[in-house]
Amino acid sequence: MDTTVGAIFAQGERSIKVPVPVYIRASASVVGTKEGQGPFGDCFDVVGMDDKFGCDTWEEAESTLQKEALQIAIGKSGLKKDEIKYLFAGDLLGQSIASSFGLGSFQIPLVGMYGACSTCGLTMSMAAMLIAGGMAEHAACVTSSHFASAEKEFRFPLGYGNQRPLSATWTVTGSGAFILSGVKSEKDRAMIDGLTIGKIVDFGLKDSMNMGACMAPAAADTIYQHLADFDRKPSDYDKIITGDLGSVGQKALWDMMREKGMDISKVHMDCGMEIYDQSQDAHAGGSGCGCSAVTLSAYILKQMEEGKWKRVLFVPTGALLSKTSFNEGQSIPGIAHGVELVNCK
Amino acid sequence: MDTTVGAIFAQGERSIKVPVPVYIRASASVVGTKEGQGPFGDCFDVVGMDDKFGCDTWEEAESTLQKEALQIAIGKSGLKKDEIKYLFAGDLLGQSIASSFGLGSFQIPLVGMYGACSTCGLTMSMAAMLIAGGMAEHAACVTSSHFASAEKEFRFPLGYGNQRPLSATWTVTGSGAFILSGVKSEKDRAMIDGLTIGKIVDFGLKDSMNMGACMAPAAADTIYQHLADFDRKPSDYDKIITGDLGSVGQKALWDMMREKGMDISKVHMDCGMEIYDQSQDAHAGGSGCGCSAVTLSAYILKQMEEGKWKRVLFVPTGALLSKTSFNEGQSIPGIAHGVELVNCK
Repeated sequence: MDTTVGAIFAQGERSIKVPVPVYIRASASVVGTKEGQGPFGDCFDVVGMDDKFGCDTWEEAESTLQKEALQIAIGKSGLKKDEIKYLFAGDLLGQSIASSFGLGSFQIPLVGMYGACSTCGLTMSMAAMLIAGGMAEHAACVTSSHFASAEKEFRFPLGYGNQRPLSATWTVTGSGAFILSGVKSEKDRAMIDGLTIGKIVDFGLKDSMNMGACMAPAAADTIYQHLADFDRKPSDYDKIITGDLGSVGQKALWDMMREKGMDISKVHMDCGMEIYDQSQDAHAGGSGCGCSAVTLSAYILKQMEEGKWKRVLFVPTGALLSKTSFNEGQSIPGIAHGVELVNCK
Repeated sequence: MDTTVGAIFAQGERSIKVPVPVYIRASASVVGTKEGQGPFGDCFDVVGMDDKFGCDTWEEAESTLQKEALQIAIGKSGLKKDEIKYLFAGDLLGQSIASSFGLGSFQIPLVGMYGACSTCGLTMSMAAMLIAGGMAEHAACVTSSHFASAEKEFRFPLGYGNQRPLSATWTVTGSGAFILSGVKSEKDRAMIDGLTIGKIVDFGLKDSMNMGACMAPAAADTIYQHLADFDRKPSDYDKIITGDLGSVGQKALWDMMREKGMDISKVHMDCGMEIYDQSQDAHAGGSGCGCSAVTLSAYILKQMEEGKWKRVLFVPTGALLSKTSFNEGQSIPGIAHGVELVNCK
């Protein structure tokens, strides 16, 4: 192996082929009631009895989601807490308080990350690169969102009862945790093979009730870049899976990819469009850090373990707004991070 | 070089000896008027004429600080923008909007990070590890804070004119940007030799007007761990430099270190206590992501370049609160990340 700095790892302009195998050894998903009633209801590790998870506030409830998810994932991994060198974590709340108050008790060195709803992809990318670079044997990644804490943070108090347009998405109450390792194990659910860190893409859209459209350009940019860097076409993947574009964003993504000469409609799936069914009144679909994270843990990795999918490009998508930037009339830039997963059974 | 995953890199429990030289090739600091009037006034690259930096809002002004600092740092590095593979960035505002709106135009893949006022240390740690692991040749790190946007985000509107107790710190208006590289150059200001990623440390303190005391336990934990992992004593360093503990936090840190059997008083410096002088009415000192970042760029690296300091432990400190967690009666946990710098001339 050539270890000259930067020598063999950078392929193409932006993507990285992970130079040493990095495995997702274990994962866990903890969700709220609405998610439990959805199509993946039976696949989650824990479905809460009520969305406060025994806490006094929505923020504490979200912290509890993270704590539970990480605890279960570590348990499944067969590792001791002390063997996990770094914990990569983030959420949607201001100053990432769901993570700060959820993960302190683990006493694992914490790398706080923010990528809005793309954070799951960002944490896994950083963990994979650190493991591949020999900086750690094992690392953990946790992200979460909660419908009620997100509405309070970004939109209106729940008691206000505002009407949501059909382009709006419903923030998923859930947390997904992943244990990544450089050491092969029989437990491994999939392998991380390639990474494409996203750029900020801003088409100037300003409608926070249509986040799918705001994020679609970033998803298109990252997917296109990933395929170009590795010289592949959409059909080389069993699935190309975005995080939370919803039905409006999906259409925009497909159109933008067609403009670039690529039809991804046959292999594209959006976590936000799968996590709820039509009867659940989620409008354009699910969203939030938790949406892609729990779908990855509960559904995507299950398909890969069972050999139904061999190669998947997982692209969580984030909208980089805050209520302050929105109220000040700023646009809503997007970002999307691509993680290429391959079957390892 | 042994490339077995995790083989030679982990030294001690938590710290990492950076296995391949990583250099700080260039850096820049952009600050506001008050910082320009302080002791380091002549050392900063840019001192703004007014704290709005020509913008309509405080948030946009903070974004402008980041944009200017990164632009200048890239210029000094002699690198082209395209040669910088990753941009690690974060700030104190909810959803890190100073970074999201300040850095989009650079079109460099963005890794968003959150470590409160410790973010400068976190971004440099991640960039150094990725470079040392061969995932990039060059990477950039940017952090910022702004007095007015931080007061609005965490405390009271400026117009309210609240009184600040003497234990309070003054958020630094400033941004520091750093270009890290795995390729040696004559420009290099210092080398990154060791890293200690912090854990969340929560002593249960709840006074947001005394952040120094809230963060001191985390600083003590990281400094103690760093010294223990590398089997060193405080006098092995020319300086051990915390980010923004201020005068109250410094006393707490010294006491806690003495309890652990280590006297750091002879080598300790706190950026927050140096950036303003007594006449500037900053009370316990300066604080914010920008405080440690601009002091590192303008003052610390200058001392190292001039050979006055050979080995420095740089430990930015962060308080992991939000106004929501504060208003809900939560404690203020701290975190501190240690970056060991050595002279490379």
